[in-house]
Amino acid sequence: MIAPDASTRDVLVSEVAPRDGLQSVRQSMPTATKHRWIAALAGAGLAEIEVGSFVSPKRLPQMADTGEVVREAVKLRGVTILALVPNLIGAERAFASGAHKVTIPVSASRSHSMQNVGKTPEEAIVELGKICALRASLPAEELPGVEAGLSTAFGCTIEGAVPEDDVIRLAVAMAQVGVDSVGLSDTTGMGNPAQVRRLFTRLRAELGEKAGGAHFHNTRGQGLANVVAALDAGVTTFDSSLGGIGGCPYAPGATGNIVTEDLVFLLEAMGLRTGIDLDKLVAARDIVREGLPGEAIYGHVAEAGLPKGFVPAGERIAA
Amino acid sequence: MIAPDASTRDVLVSEVAPRDGLQSVRQSMPTATKHRWIAALAGAGLAEIEVGSFVSPKRLPQMADTGEVVREAVKLRGVTILALVPNLIGAERAFASGAHKVTIPVSASRSHSMQNVGKTPEEAIVELGKICALRASLPAEELPGVEAGLSTAFGCTIEGAVPEDDVIRLAVAMAQVGVDSVGLSDTTGMGNPAQVRRLFTRLRAELGEKAGGAHFHNTRGQGLANVVAALDAGVTTFDSSLGGIGGCPYAPGATGNIVTEDLVFLLEAMGLRTGIDLDKLVAARDIVREGLPGEAIYGHVAEAGLPKGFVPAGERIAA
Repeated sequence: MIAPDASTRDVLVSEVAPRDGLQSVRQSMPTATKHRWIAALAGAGLAEIEVGSFVSPKRLPQMADTGEVVREAVKLRGVTILALVPNLIGAERAFASGAHKVTIPVSASRSHSMQNVGKTPEEAIVELGKICALRASLPAEELPGVEAGLSTAFGCTIEGAVPEDDVIRLAVAMAQVGVDSVGLSDTTGMGNPAQVRRLFTRLRAELGEKAGGAHFHNTRGQGLANVVAALDAGVTTFDSSLGGIGGCPYAPGATGNIVTEDLVFLLEAMGLRTGIDLDKLVAARDIVREGLPGEAIYGHVAEAGLPKGFVPAGERIAA
Repeated sequence: MIAPDASTRDVLVSEVAPRDGLQSVRQSMPTATKHRWIAALAGAGLAEIEVGSFVSPKRLPQMADTGEVVREAVKLRGVTILALVPNLIGAERAFASGAHKVTIPVSASRSHSMQNVGKTPEEAIVELGKICALRASLPAEELPGVEAGLSTAFGCTIEGAVPEDDVIRLAVAMAQVGVDSVGLSDTTGMGNPAQVRRLFTRLRAELGEKAGGAHFHNTRGQGLANVVAALDAGVTTFDSSLGGIGGCPYAPGATGNIVTEDLVFLLEAMGLRTGIDLDKLVAARDIVREGLPGEAIYGHVAEAGLPKGFVPAGERIAA
């Protein structure tokens, strides 16, 4: 097994299928299957997994067991367990469950923000500040991470184009209320590589070490093209979803996240170490099939197999 | 209709579905449907279309009508009509049919070359020289173009990795026998963006104006990621296939070319003008469905639609 410590890794792949994937399918994966699946993902070398969302179970019944899932997942070694929280109440629950880190989405688009959380972006940032204050009140030895993501940063299904100046202005405001990092999310699969390069370059210039990762959807097949552009702009953290399951229930037409297996192949083929074992990753798809019978699972690498003689970056270094 | 002249175009998209696509499906598209389809592709603004292959009809019966298809297609205005030719006999037929340009594949992998054309790469380059000599013997006013493509340039399903020095050495030898340009083909979908950037940068350094375009397959979902890297390396011509139909019958496991609709969306979204009308392009898929009933057609953009408020690069310039 490849060592999970960050010094042997060039890029962090943050697995979001147990949250972004599962929240977008109608059926609920049984809790015991979630436990096994998350353990398999960690066993494949994924160093960060977003395991659920502390939202109202009335809104997303698939996420009702998130507390239990987090409490089990944090027992795994060498993996950071994340949970999405939409507000302060969710953050309280997440911190109580022992999540290593919370991630809070803030919509760059006012219309998407109102529809998604019933707040303007500015109001959502005030709430973000409260979550940071709550984190600061916790005992120093167990301070969880707080990251935020700007959703619809590359376009909105309701508003269309989202001004890049708005995105950067909101990102700066989010960093100022005390989050550890601010990432950019192409929630609606509207981004293109030129835009990705521009926005992440500006984000890094404005936020420095607080500039976070990229969360791309593959709605229009541009996901990995956008990854190449983000890598050029210095991004080293990417969200992705095993089997490409997932999407945004409040962004009609937005299909799944970029596929973890295809992303890891891209990175390792380019010589960038992820610490992830592709064979074990592909094997973890079986648990999704079992836990979500009949659900569509995507991914080219799992279908085509690895190229003859393929040597991942991690093994090239070791050789 | 967008003007077809090259001065209003940043990138040339060369449509290969009527050749690379049709040769890889079992059923043959009726000749009359091919005529209508190619006219629709030209009508959508595609400025270059590879309409068939002058191979033995015993080997590829789907290509048996290529002479007739070329003779009809060259009547269309504002579009360069290409045909693939595997050898001198094929080139004679192509020139006789009035094709504007021929394209000749040479395998960088010795094993793939033997299997595909029964010649070593070096023997194939001798044949290439004969085709260039034949072209030179034609009346000066109707000299067709001769381009060559190095297939398996990014890896071979039989041999695995193909040394980059071999690829560049063969490309230089091909340029020396008199072809107009030498492109690189990821026939087997094994390429990655780092390799694409390296190889095209070297190709351009060695061949200058004779450095040709990129032909990518999407076997492992990396096609558009490779396009971004090739753009960085200065490539301005890309092969692609409407609906992603196609593949290589001699490279097992290699699925279709990159999807023209998704490529054009990528380029136009990035601000690069293609001269292509995306709506008309998507509409041309209906002719494929009609001419190849039951055949799988791919593409994310056609499924998801254009993003709200999307303005292609060509219209941004005009505004």
